[in-house]
Amino acid sequence: MIHTGRHFLQVPGPTNVPDRVLRAMASPVIDHRSSEFAELGLSVLERLRAVFKTAGPVVIYPSSGTGAWEAALVNTLSPGDRILMCETGHFSQMWRQVAMKFGLEVDYLPGTWRSGADPEAVAERLAFDRERAYKAVLIVHNETSTGVTSRVAEIRAAMTGSNHPALLMVDTISSLGSMDYRHDEWGVDVTIAGSQKGLMLPPGLAMNAISQKALAASGHARFHRSYWDWHEMLKSNTHGFFPYTPATNLLYGLREALSILFEEGLPNVFRRHDRHGQATRAAVKAWGLETVCTNAHEYSSSLTAVFMPEGRDADRLRQIIVENFDMSLGAGLSKLAGRVFRIGHLGSFNDLTLAGALSGIEMGLRLAGIPPKDSGVTAALNSLLSTCEQVTPSAPLK
Amino acid sequence: MIHTGRHFLQVPGPTNVPDRVLRAMASPVIDHRSSEFAELGLSVLERLRAVFKTAGPVVIYPSSGTGAWEAALVNTLSPGDRILMCETGHFSQMWRQVAMKFGLEVDYLPGTWRSGADPEAVAERLAFDRERAYKAVLIVHNETSTGVTSRVAEIRAAMTGSNHPALLMVDTISSLGSMDYRHDEWGVDVTIAGSQKGLMLPPGLAMNAISQKALAASGHARFHRSYWDWHEMLKSNTHGFFPYTPATNLLYGLREALSILFEEGLPNVFRRHDRHGQATRAAVKAWGLETVCTNAHEYSSSLTAVFMPEGRDADRLRQIIVENFDMSLGAGLSKLAGRVFRIGHLGSFNDLTLAGALSGIEMGLRLAGIPPKDSGVTAALNSLLSTCEQVTPSAPLK
Amino acid sequence: MIHTGRHFLQVPGPTNVPDRVLRAMASPVIDHRSSEFAELGLSVLERLRAVFKTAGPVVIYPSSGTGAWEAALVNTLSPGDRILMCETGHFSQMWRQVAMKFGLEVDYLPGTWRSGADPEAVAERLAFDRERAYKAVLIVHNETSTGVTSRVAEIRAAMTGSNHPALLMVDTISSLGSMDYRHDEWGVDVTIAGSQKGLMLPPGLAMNAISQKALAASGHARFHRSYWDWHEMLKSNTHGFFPYTPATNLLYGLREALSILFEEGLPNVFRRHDRHGQATRAAVKAWGLETVCTNAHEYSSSLTAVFMPEGRDADRLRQIIVENFDMSLGAGLSKLAGRVFRIGHLGSFNDLTLAGALSGIEMGLRLAGIPPKDSGVTAALNSLLSTCEQVTPSAPLK
Amino acid sequence: MIHTGRHFLQVPGPTNVPDRVLRAMASPVIDHRSSEFAELGLSVLERLRAVFKTAGPVVIYPSSGTGAWEAALVNTLSPGDRILMCETGHFSQMWRQVAMKFGLEVDYLPGTWRSGADPEAVAERLAFDRERAYKAVLIVHNETSTGVTSRVAEIRAAMTGSNHPALLMVDTISSLGSMDYRHDEWGVDVTIAGSQKGLMLPPGLAMNAISQKALAASGHARFHRSYWDWHEMLKSNTHGFFPYTPATNLLYGLREALSILFEEGLPNVFRRHDRHGQATRAAVKAWGLETVCTNAHEYSSSLTAVFMPEGRDADRLRQIIVENFDMSLGAGLSKLAGRVFRIGHLGSFNDLTLAGALSGIEMGLRLAGIPPKDSGVTAALNSLLSTCEQVTPSAPLK
Repeated sequence: MIHTGRHFLQVPGPTNVPDRVLRAMASPVIDHRSSEFAELGLSVLERLRAVFKTAGPVVIYPSSGTGAWEAALVNTLSPGDRILMCETGHFSQMWRQVAMKFGLEVDYLPGTWRSGADPEAVAERLAFDRERAYKAVLIVHNETSTGVTSRVAEIRAAMTGSNHPALLMVDTISSLGSMDYRHDEWGVDVTIAGSQKGLMLPPGLAMNAISQKALAASGHARFHRSYWDWHEMLKSNTHGFFPYTPATNLLYGLREALSILFEEGLPNVFRRHDRHGQATRAAVKAWGLETVCTNAHEYSSSLTAVFMPEGRDADRLRQIIVENFDMSLGAGLSKLAGRVFRIGHLGSFNDLTLAGALSGIEMGLRLAGIPPKDSGVTAALNSLLSTCEQVTPSAPLK
Repeated sequence: MIHTGRHFLQVPGPTNVPDRVLRAMASPVIDHRSSEFAELGLSVLERLRAVFKTAGPVVIYPSSGTGAWEAALVNTLSPGDRILMCETGHFSQMWRQVAMKFGLEVDYLPGTWRSGADPEAVAERLAFDRERAYKAVLIVHNETSTGVTSRVAEIRAAMTGSNHPALLMVDTISSLGSMDYRHDEWGVDVTIAGSQKGLMLPPGLAMNAISQKALAASGHARFHRSYWDWHEMLKSNTHGFFPYTPATNLLYGLREALSILFEEGLPNVFRRHDRHGQATRAAVKAWGLETVCTNAHEYSSSLTAVFMPEGRDADRLRQIIVENFDMSLGAGLSKLAGRVFRIGHLGSFNDLTLAGALSGIEMGLRLAGIPPKDSGVTAALNSLLSTCEQVTPSAPLK
Repeated sequence: MIHTGRHFLQVPGPTNVPDRVLRAMASPVIDHRSSEFAELGLSVLERLRAVFKTAGPVVIYPSSGTGAWEAALVNTLSPGDRILMCETGHFSQMWRQVAMKFGLEVDYLPGTWRSGADPEAVAERLAFDRERAYKAVLIVHNETSTGVTSRVAEIRAAMTGSNHPALLMVDTISSLGSMDYRHDEWGVDVTIAGSQKGLMLPPGLAMNAISQKALAASGHARFHRSYWDWHEMLKSNTHGFFPYTPATNLLYGLREALSILFEEGLPNVFRRHDRHGQATRAAVKAWGLETVCTNAHEYSSSLTAVFMPEGRDADRLRQIIVENFDMSLGAGLSKLAGRVFRIGHLGSFNDLTLAGALSGIEMGLRLAGIPPKDSGVTAALNSLLSTCEQVTPSAPLK
Repeated sequence: MIHTGRHFLQVPGPTNVPDRVLRAMASPVIDHRSSEFAELGLSVLERLRAVFKTAGPVVIYPSSGTGAWEAALVNTLSPGDRILMCETGHFSQMWRQVAMKFGLEVDYLPGTWRSGADPEAVAERLAFDRERAYKAVLIVHNETSTGVTSRVAEIRAAMTGSNHPALLMVDTISSLGSMDYRHDEWGVDVTIAGSQKGLMLPPGLAMNAISQKALAASGHARFHRSYWDWHEMLKSNTHGFFPYTPATNLLYGLREALSILFEEGLPNVFRRHDRHGQATRAAVKAWGLETVCTNAHEYSSSLTAVFMPEGRDADRLRQIIVENFDMSLGAGLSKLAGRVFRIGHLGSFNDLTLAGALSGIEMGLRLAGIPPKDSGVTAALNSLLSTCEQVTPSAPLK
């Protein structure tokens, strides 16, 4: 494929990696037992905590996000344990499969894929669980297959209301670093994250943020574990080291990405993602299309999943767009396959790149013979303008 | 300045450098007397010729484009020589100043800055020049300050018609590699170019393509010269070397940029620039604004200069745009200062980046209190679609 | 730490990454579901096989080498299975610990840490195992803590001789891509490797090469597994994809590193490592020091572990060297701690870098008050010269 | 050519560019009229002054060092002016040729190429010049073809002693940033420098540091000039800009290189180069060879030129070394061609890289059938150790 100019990578992750991060990753490898490395290790571990909003430990694995799902389970549970999961979409499904492969008994609270985990339904199940059989409640914060968020704080409130001792585990793979998330304040026990979305890195790192309660649970957890074992990890991390060879160059990238996040400031980062989500939904509405997410208070700020008109193939649209406009969009997954396309608007991103991306979709729809009702791009520009903190030019350009 | 996502560099050069080229430039320096270097030198010198469409020599200086203006003069002329230049805009003015600093007698054919060099006016002057006093006619192919092209072949025809022996020198700084240009076929004697526009490199290299006639003229040219001297350069170039230390890493970049150009194919490159010029003008028209260029057959495909509505300050608009949308546009220069802004749509570029750029201008106009008559972005998308060689998706995406 | 010039990274891995590989890794991330990605995936999977010398599948995990140890176990064995491991040093110990954490019964054939796994002792154990209780024999090909290799083909012969059905699993983390290794010919069932040694990449990828017999065994293996599961992986790999987000940029690096390896040619790569091992041992001998490895037919070509004189602290020497000469050496591990330092001479490396590294050790010894008996550098240069395929200069330099 | 590991670039420039600088150069181009650029421009212009040790202006050209020679002449002199140059080697010769091409009358004080410019001879000529015909005295500080330095302060003293008004111009192309140099204190009027040696950049930038007296002279200088003109340059530089498009990415590199220089500290940088010069000469002596430089107080710290034994071809030696050991050395130039090879030990460099480089020469001599008298490498290591500020290890490595 010949790229003239930049490819538009608008899948909902991996996201566009800032060139500063790519250059940082191109630094020579250093000895992972040196004091120079220890500084790197301590710095990224410390600053990552601020992104998770936790005072507790965060561990980093050389792995994909699915590895961090597995890590959360094997460190805290034992074979045969019963857990409660909420169906939110393809990724809740995938996580459930991991749990089942490990012999966990999964109660899967059914969902429509168009709304988030239901705090009331969770409360009901927990109330019913007199013997406190559930060892954990597992939630996807931002379901990457649907663009629907779940209200983690309300889930925790439901658990607290039921006085239920289960651990709360939350997948933030496509929300961390893009949307407000509060590990400590929301009482989450294990938060799962990956490098390739809001953290603006290539894939290859995954994380667990760990509450004291989760750490205590890991003392009795009887799953075999070595690679994912928190205890060895935390012991080495104290000094900025790792129990096995870390993915040094991805950590270089992480150091730079964290600097970029904090230079912008997390509140600004979140506000930026909110604006882009809003503008994207304005475009979708103008086109006469429908988002998968039905509840306004559950809209994702990092991606938007859009239904095709009845009978039209989303994958054909995506193919037309990639071939004509060099833009990748996310496919519909499992039961949404062919019916949905997904727009990532997260990570290293800005108004004009969003405008370009939406322009590509608008032209793609027309090429695909699906004339949009109205100009989505115009609607998006209106939305962006209405939410723009207009900067008054301080001094004229020369 | 905090960049979230990529800066939109839409000045009419320097242009966005492909990441492949930036990475190539980050290769370690090699000995410029080694056989490994010679291969590099021969390869770029050879392939550059195809871009100029010449079978003759092209020389490369470590310098800016202005250096290549100077090189063209000092290699072919002598102090006091009379030359004919056509006023096309700021850059014809600047080149004229160089000529005057070197003590050349410049006849400056007046122009409006809204149309290209006039072949008939040139013919008239040459006809009048019975003693053949003019040693050279100097033309800017694509006037970067106005977005107006000059018809080089017709200028040459005028010269041939007058049977005038003057050399023809053409500045292609903002057209080479973006618009069709034919050094040999059009009978140009010296073509001047730079690295930072259609060649998709950072600034730092400049070129002269040289006809046999120009080479012969250099034998009698009496300007002092050393750095710019063609003869030493050509002697070393034969073996892929340079008479003084070349800018090795920019040459790495050039090698990669030439590969990118030829992978796309020059005809495709030119067609792409034409489409983007056309779409940009569609946007300008929809906004109710006016391009500086008045003649449809002289539109530049690499940049568009746009007049502000009467009484509105272009520099304030540019400032609003850079501060709110992180996009750089070109300023109006000399007599167009404050009245004009310039959009670069050349180099490593594509439809969606153009759509993003035009979206930034459209929002900037509104923030500046200059409501566009109509949506320029929509007009541009229509234009792009109407000129899009629709690619029929071969196989569905998975 | 201020580096003037390049740091000498002479630990036995991670190794010095070629700048070509670092630049390749700095390419923008692409969609891991795109056809462009599929080409990348197919290309690296295909060419990796040639490095393992196998016609069978190789899988790549985003993980460290220890992850690939775990993967080998959980894919082929079941809790409570009995396995035979050979003590060769720290890393055989670590692998054993992984096995024990997974509830495997490990028979650990004792070793001196100064010689490789003993084929006769293995044969004896297997002969004794009438009920065929051993499900696998586990060997470290090149023990990174000692610089001793084990004779894999002879181990296999011992197994064949005993007609024992156990699987043979071999850790080649610090030998693959540096020393000759033949997965198929030697009858290995699972080969474990990592990216950060002979493959000249940063850490972050690990591999399993898998025999048909191992694949069959995985059908009955009862360990819980998801992340490490071969079957999902192999299914996706068929089309160049991965079952979860792959570490795309490390795969870019792998593609480039494989190109570099094949440009040099594996036989040349191995010969180069042999020469460097030999020269290093010549230096050690001249210094009057002793290598950990005692048998000439078990010398490692990728690293050399060296005993300090009685009573001298290896870590103090390493500290002196890193602070004065900006070179990292490997520490003595577990029972060799403080008594041994290790020199990595593998990966992207050449004669003059080796000479520089040995010079640093020679000066370090003197600064540490351990005057070398004789010049090790001179001995190494003699060795390099004696094994140098002298290139007759073809044409004089200009 | 296949490189296994790093090429040893030991020509006396271009030098090995730190990877930090290469990565900095790979940053995206920015608008050279933006405030972001102005910060870059002001920062490098300001910090460069400290390297020249001047409070006056320094200008930066996109050009090679030879361009900066030309710039020094055309800004200060007029056609037909008489100047005094000192023969020191090939580069004094080349600069003289530039002067002659510009119609200057050059008195060329003969030299042996084995010692620096002679202050007494200069004094004598100036004393003889009753009419003050000499407009300038031109000296090469560090003659790159011979490794001989000239005593600039003594030359200035000679001029002051003669009360002669001539300007003093000094070429520091291969000394600036490697050896102590003091533009203001030594009373130099124009200092010429380039990017690709002690400044640790790729070639492509050249500089003039300018005294008030030189600036005043430029007011009456009658050479035609435009590209090299100081006045336009200085006017733009005030605000961090340039009168024509600057080589932005090389300026990124310069910013990073200056940071590296100041992190180490100029006195440490100079001391490091002194140590390496001394160690190199120790090696040359041990080999039984002779340096071109005969006076101990004129040894260059940035390069060493070495005579071959009578009848032996230096270029064959260099060819053997590059083909067998992947190291580039400098050739003998003009009258030293074939008789001399030159070792660069400047820029981004350290003890172990020097040891590697000298090892390559030692092995090369032996392959060429020129057995060295004694081990130069051992002599160099002794020298390095004797001048090493031994760092006492603060805390043991783990």
